[in-house]
Amino acid sequence: MEKIAEMSNELLQLRRVAIDTYKENVAYMHRDCEFYRVEGFQALTKVVVRANGQHIYAVLNVVDDEAIVQPCELGLSEQAFAQLGLNEGERVRVAQAEPPSSMDAVRRKITGERLTLADFQGITQDIVRNRYSKMEMAAFLVASGQTGLDREEILHLTQAMTESGERLDWHEPLVVDKHCIGGIPGNRTTMLVVPIVAAHGMLMAKTSSRAITSPAGTADTMEVLCKVDLTPDQLHRIVRKERACLAWGGTARLAPADDILISVERPLGIDSSGQMVASILSKKLAAGSTHLLIDIPVGPSAKVRHMREALQLRKLFEYVGDRMGIHLEVIITDGAQPVGNGIGPVLEARDVMAVLRNDPDAPSDLRQKALRLAGRILEFDPDVRGGYGYTIARDILDSGRALKKMEAIIAAQGPQEEAPIIGALNYEVCAERAGVVVQIDNYHVAKVARLAGAPIDKGAGVDLLKKLGDVVAQGEPLYRVHAEYTSDYNFARALTDSASGYRIGEAHEVSKTYMEF
Amino acid sequence: MEKIAEMSNELLQLRRVAIDTYKENVAYMHRDCEFYRVEGFQALTKVVVRANGQHIYAVLNVVDDEAIVQPCELGLSEQAFAQLGLNEGERVRVAQAEPPSSMDAVRRKITGERLTLADFQGITQDIVRNRYSKMEMAAFLVASGQTGLDREEILHLTQAMTESGERLDWHEPLVVDKHCIGGIPGNRTTMLVVPIVAAHGMLMAKTSSRAITSPAGTADTMEVLCKVDLTPDQLHRIVRKERACLAWGGTARLAPADDILISVERPLGIDSSGQMVASILSKKLAAGSTHLLIDIPVGPSAKVRHMREALQLRKLFEYVGDRMGIHLEVIITDGAQPVGNGIGPVLEARDVMAVLRNDPDAPSDLRQKALRLAGRILEFDPDVRGGYGYTIARDILDSGRALKKMEAIIAAQGPQEEAPIIGALNYEVCAERAGVVVQIDNYHVAKVARLAGAPIDKGAGVDLLKKLGDVVAQGEPLYRVHAEYTSDYNFARALTDSASGYRIGEAHEVSKTYMEF
Repeated sequence: MEKIAEMSNELLQLRRVAIDTYKENVAYMHRDCEFYRVEGFQALTKVVVRANGQHIYAVLNVVDDEAIVQPCELGLSEQAFAQLGLNEGERVRVAQAEPPSSMDAVRRKITGERLTLADFQGITQDIVRNRYSKMEMAAFLVASGQTGLDREEILHLTQAMTESGERLDWHEPLVVDKHCIGGIPGNRTTMLVVPIVAAHGMLMAKTSSRAITSPAGTADTMEVLCKVDLTPDQLHRIVRKERACLAWGGTARLAPADDILISVERPLGIDSSGQMVASILSKKLAAGSTHLLIDIPVGPSAKVRHMREALQLRKLFEYVGDRMGIHLEVIITDGAQPVGNGIGPVLEARDVMAVLRNDPDAPSDLRQKALRLAGRILEFDPDVRGGYGYTIARDILDSGRALKKMEAIIAAQGPQEEAPIIGALNYEVCAERAGVVVQIDNYHVAKVARLAGAPIDKGAGVDLLKKLGDVVAQGEPLYRVHAEYTSDYNFARALTDSASGYRIGEAHEVSKTYMEF
Repeated sequence: MEKIAEMSNELLQLRRVAIDTYKENVAYMHRDCEFYRVEGFQALTKVVVRANGQHIYAVLNVVDDEAIVQPCELGLSEQAFAQLGLNEGERVRVAQAEPPSSMDAVRRKITGERLTLADFQGITQDIVRNRYSKMEMAAFLVASGQTGLDREEILHLTQAMTESGERLDWHEPLVVDKHCIGGIPGNRTTMLVVPIVAAHGMLMAKTSSRAITSPAGTADTMEVLCKVDLTPDQLHRIVRKERACLAWGGTARLAPADDILISVERPLGIDSSGQMVASILSKKLAAGSTHLLIDIPVGPSAKVRHMREALQLRKLFEYVGDRMGIHLEVIITDGAQPVGNGIGPVLEARDVMAVLRNDPDAPSDLRQKALRLAGRILEFDPDVRGGYGYTIARDILDSGRALKKMEAIIAAQGPQEEAPIIGALNYEVCAERAGVVVQIDNYHVAKVARLAGAPIDKGAGVDLLKKLGDVVAQGEPLYRVHAEYTSDYNFARALTDSASGYRIGEAHEVSKTYMEF
């Protein structure tokens, strides 16, 4: 029920206010508004705006300037105006909105209760309808974080998030995908795996995110080479022709509850395994994937630091995946250091293309990891004998068929007319002593790359010259930092002056890879 | 450290944007802003605005209308503009703000770690400096809610919140205060306790809140009689002369971190005992109170439903109060039903004045409860023999000295020229069957009063005609609902048509009061 301070025939004229309030709808009402007792709508109250059977929810701001809204008008921020879908000047009614009814379930979760599938469906539906404020979403995320959800609840959350938007159906028995849980800079294997498995004939309609907290996402890096912002029609046409694409996933309405929750989760820097599993699997299920490979890197500065933890997470993915009817395999990989040499869109694109071109200087760790992942995906094909995937993947790569497929995908998506180049401002960070590189802090080098301007400045980032186990002389360069702007250059420099992120020690201190592969 | 996308000499002109964004600072930047690469500031990112050694934090909105801000300008919402304290046209610099460093502690709390005093100090300082967004505060509140804080942490949070603003010192050994944890409609004892203990000569500089989720706060009710919005100077002068005041606490900067947290806690509807204890005690300590009486009402529809829970809460108040050096006593009272008859500012003020005037029709439960509370406070006076407080309080009330003191306080604060009157639109809710009133739902009658318009419409509310244990005939009125506006009248009516909030049963079903007093 809504407490409505409106009177029966009182309508306001709709006005578009050209303010971009991102994922939050804002309504603007003049303090002297003719019909409504504005003081009844406490500032920043949530209101519901109705007209012609449409309605949207918005946060209320009170305005004292008639140039923005007049007393007889109701203003809506750009996204709220678009969402309501009416013309300026149309008559709307405004009422104070009660908190979403599913907040009761969130409060029950805060006190430690177990939630049902219906509870999660109520929450995700209210989120998609813009009924949750950011603080209400934060309350839900924190309450259901860490040990907050048991695996049955995670299954229910996954199901509710999958149902929150559209679902693609490719009408094929084998639609493959891969996903890495993240945290390893330079780990751009997707751009190698996609052309390899597509060259084999598998369907892999890959949509990826842009970086939010990392120095580059797959979408940012692919964008160095070609357009990634495709309409659903373009995407389908390209996939039908090439069996694959490498697009940005932002335009599809797949598991939209997840996108909205991520817009709160990332800035808060909270990341629970339950939310992660539900987020990844709901997106893949909505995208119509039938077979999925999950990559969990483990290392001292990775998201997952211990094998024990990685195994727990694997079981959770398997439990939910099996019940949601997706064929899912988990591979635990070495996350002790960045993969490849470049960190930042242009530098990572350079590494990827070097591997595809079988360049002798291409980073071998990136090549090896991509081949292993592609090999596992190829084995989803019933016609590929167990254990032969790696060899097939290597043949596809070595023969140049993967490069050819990548070039076809780039041509289909629309090549960049002017390819961005590596940032011209640069300096080297050098070893303070002689010895062996025994540790590289993933977080630290990612932070250096971000301060240098990545991913916004595509040419900015870090180029690693030494990796774990390499012998270095005193003063020898460890990595090069690239920036496009002086201010960013200085910020990165201030950080690397305080610490390089590398530890130089003795050969025996280098930890051995103990992962599968 | 802040990631700054600014370049060295680039300044924007400050502009006041007449939008009231309540407790959240908002900055407006044009999408074609000359100097800043706006896309680097993702919409709704937090920015820091600097000039002349001043700086404030604000959320960024991107604007496409030069009538609001031009590309060379930076707009600030009203409260942000006031907080920065500069003139329009002055030059400001803008940079993207990193999340507050104390969010690390919040994230540690989310994973279940114990926080130190220094952690809580960092959090409250960042909150007071507007560095927390509402979602960050929600994360802190949920993570530290329920079983999230142990009592040592609650002590540290109390200390940090007390230190977050100014602290009054009355330079007297005995500065008394009282506080009820809330949830009982009509429970306006403060307006009786203050004149009684002040008439005895005790110092009681009472500041109260306005209602946020209830139908009336003490400040709303006192405002029916006189002004409550006093400057610190006025407040001090009145207290020095009358030994007391009954003012709104909103203007003082006492424990400001608490005010800001409450602006998130209330709309979320979360209320943990740790936060409650820290909130109440930090405010009282900052206000310079030396002796404090806490009232915990217990009842089936009160905030605290079981004696066991009330005792736990009492121990927590005692533990923190003792260590913070305040003399604190807790009284557990009967919260089975509303206190007095009126619910809503004018109706409650009527009840209070009736008790002060010794009107034979004055509600006896309100009188009795106020006398018990005042008696306990009077016993803080070393010269009052244990057990004699009640008798002294009764003498002060019966002799008319309490009324005289109340009139003096009203005269000092500034009487209302035109006293608000009881809402003219009214109807009665009647018993569906004959019997005895065996249950009254505090939440339900509070909700009826709010829908009728309280506390915004001071004359709106509910007037109880029957209380627990009263015998009623079928069709006899249980309570009367008053409203000032037709729409509110209809909303209240819709709710009472679905349920009255009363249960009529047999005499033996009335639960007996088992509380102290």
